[in-house]
Amino acid sequence: MAGSFHTLRWRDGVLELLDQRALPDHVEYPVFDSARAVADAIRAMVVRGAPAIGCAAAYGVALEAQRLSAGSGEAFLAGLEQAFDVLSGSRPTAVNLFWALARVRHVLDAARGMAHAVIAERLLDEAHAIAAEDLRINQAMGHHGSALLRDGARVLTHCNAGALATAGHGTALGVIRSAIASGKKVSVIADETRPFLQGARLTAWELQQDEIPVTLIADNAAGLLMSRGEIDAVIVGADRVAANGDVANKIGTYGVAVLARRHGIPFYVACPLSTIDPKVATGAAIPIEERGAEEITGFGAVRWAPRAVRVRNPVFDVTPAELVSALITERGVVESPDYGKIARLFKD
Amino acid sequence: MAGSFHTLRWRDGVLELLDQRALPDHVEYPVFDSARAVADAIRAMVVRGAPAIGCAAAYGVALEAQRLSAGSGEAFLAGLEQAFDVLSGSRPTAVNLFWALARVRHVLDAARGMAHAVIAERLLDEAHAIAAEDLRINQAMGHHGSALLRDGARVLTHCNAGALATAGHGTALGVIRSAIASGKKVSVIADETRPFLQGARLTAWELQQDEIPVTLIADNAAGLLMSRGEIDAVIVGADRVAANGDVANKIGTYGVAVLARRHGIPFYVACPLSTIDPKVATGAAIPIEERGAEEITGFGAVRWAPRAVRVRNPVFDVTPAELVSALITERGVVESPDYGKIARLFKD
Repeated sequence: MAGSFHTLRWRDGVLELLDQRALPDHVEYPVFDSARAVADAIRAMVVRGAPAIGCAAAYGVALEAQRLSAGSGEAFLAGLEQAFDVLSGSRPTAVNLFWALARVRHVLDAARGMAHAVIAERLLDEAHAIAAEDLRINQAMGHHGSALLRDGARVLTHCNAGALATAGHGTALGVIRSAIASGKKVSVIADETRPFLQGARLTAWELQQDEIPVTLIADNAAGLLMSRGEIDAVIVGADRVAANGDVANKIGTYGVAVLARRHGIPFYVACPLSTIDPKVATGAAIPIEERGAEEITGFGAVRWAPRAVRVRNPVFDVTPAELVSALITERGVVESPDYGKIARLFKD
Repeated sequence: MAGSFHTLRWRDGVLELLDQRALPDHVEYPVFDSARAVADAIRAMVVRGAPAIGCAAAYGVALEAQRLSAGSGEAFLAGLEQAFDVLSGSRPTAVNLFWALARVRHVLDAARGMAHAVIAERLLDEAHAIAAEDLRINQAMGHHGSALLRDGARVLTHCNAGALATAGHGTALGVIRSAIASGKKVSVIADETRPFLQGARLTAWELQQDEIPVTLIADNAAGLLMSRGEIDAVIVGADRVAANGDVANKIGTYGVAVLARRHGIPFYVACPLSTIDPKVATGAAIPIEERGAEEITGFGAVRWAPRAVRVRNPVFDVTPAELVSALITERGVVESPDYGKIARLFKD
């Protein structure tokens, strides 16, 4: 894990989450002891980032099992079903959430009939396994992806696909960490990433913690910097990748990809296999979350837009596979991803 | 002029400016009585928008002449030279500033040797003429441009090229106003326009004043809306247009133009001839202003980025002429602008 923080941690029977809404000024670890509390934390973006959401959701089911394990058999199973429901309804776009819940459900199904305490323990073991795997996978992605970056590369990233978005190391920022660990000098240009400012608040802070050189820009400045030859590569994470390689990621990613193509700059997407959704044929079928107007009319307690202005706030967009130079996965780099190459990834 | 406000107004011997930093919550008209005060107001963005900056600068020279007219001949002329210097140093990118100062200097040269009070009066007359012309020119641009918009058009705009950026009516928003006045239903999608949020603060407010339907979005959402077929045209203003048709405008304009091209959406630039700089061959020669880090690390009194983060804040970019479907000028619409077509505009 990066620096001196952890995104999520199991401790004394509860889940600690780094409250990412309080960053960069305050490093706080509120604790969560039920599925509903974890779902609320996901919805409120205490924890965010597709892989971290998946880990948190798995812990959410484990917490609920622990909480209900003293109850009757029926209440226990009904309560767990409710936990799955409330967690799967927390955010719609990132597929890791559904992937992690499916893994946990598989464990639950296999343990049916066992003592509640045993089931609760197995669910917790699975949550721990998902988090530990996520860290290993990110390190593997970092290893594969770092070969794509030359010494001295200036890498643009959008949103936060870092340790803060995962159980540790990060996806996009994991590639940068691994490249630096291999001896390359790499610097980062971080899009501030309106409206939620994950780049300004999280990526800038996370990279500072590791003393990785970072320059913060308005999202609008990416095109000018590319036109001046100041960007060598783009690496972003993903919330869901369709079977054909279309990438749903933070709103604005598509614009960055279109600009990168125009300037002949490689556009990489770092995504674990858990982010690829083979059940979704193309990006057109990925649900795009729309969030509240208050994220657009201001930030936090500050409002700058006039009252009662109409707002649209879709928070993800879809980058078509043809704009993706390569997917970086734990099983290797997939150049010019398409349906066949992605299907083979899962068969290997 | 739009609704119930005026961007700049001469009143009782001083210049009133609508303080655009206080919008949308407060409509305040501080007064300015010297060239230095006007230059400070331009630099601090009390007044902004290429045409409005030009008008304000002309009034700045007139104010200085009035202020110094009781003094000696040498002090008067030296003081006016200083006024030209301080005003021309206030912002580097918008060419209307230099264009307006050149017009005022021409009047000064022609009046050399006359009584100070007469010179001061002629300079003020010229400032009034520039402002009155700007309004007429915007109405002419609106007339020509409105033919480009179909009934029901959903028009994306970036930054504020409205009445607030001019002496009235607006350039890009003037086209929309004229289209609506001609009986068409037109609605506006306003990019919030980080970092200074002219879209959220000014365009949204200005259109509300006129009851023109407006939807505010994060700059990052433009690509998604285009990919969903929710944008029919883009109209922006300009800070300087090169002799070949390259357009310097608010940072992020270039990205919008690249996306519009990808989606086959027309990209129009509304610009008076005073915004075209025939002395600059291409956009590469247009100076791009960089402003302070505090515009990126937060907004107003709020800071959201970590302390000491490195920042880049270029506030304009250049859209190459090949991406411009048409320039809308007071002399008509110039489709696919190039060197020859622009040169002919000035010869007619």
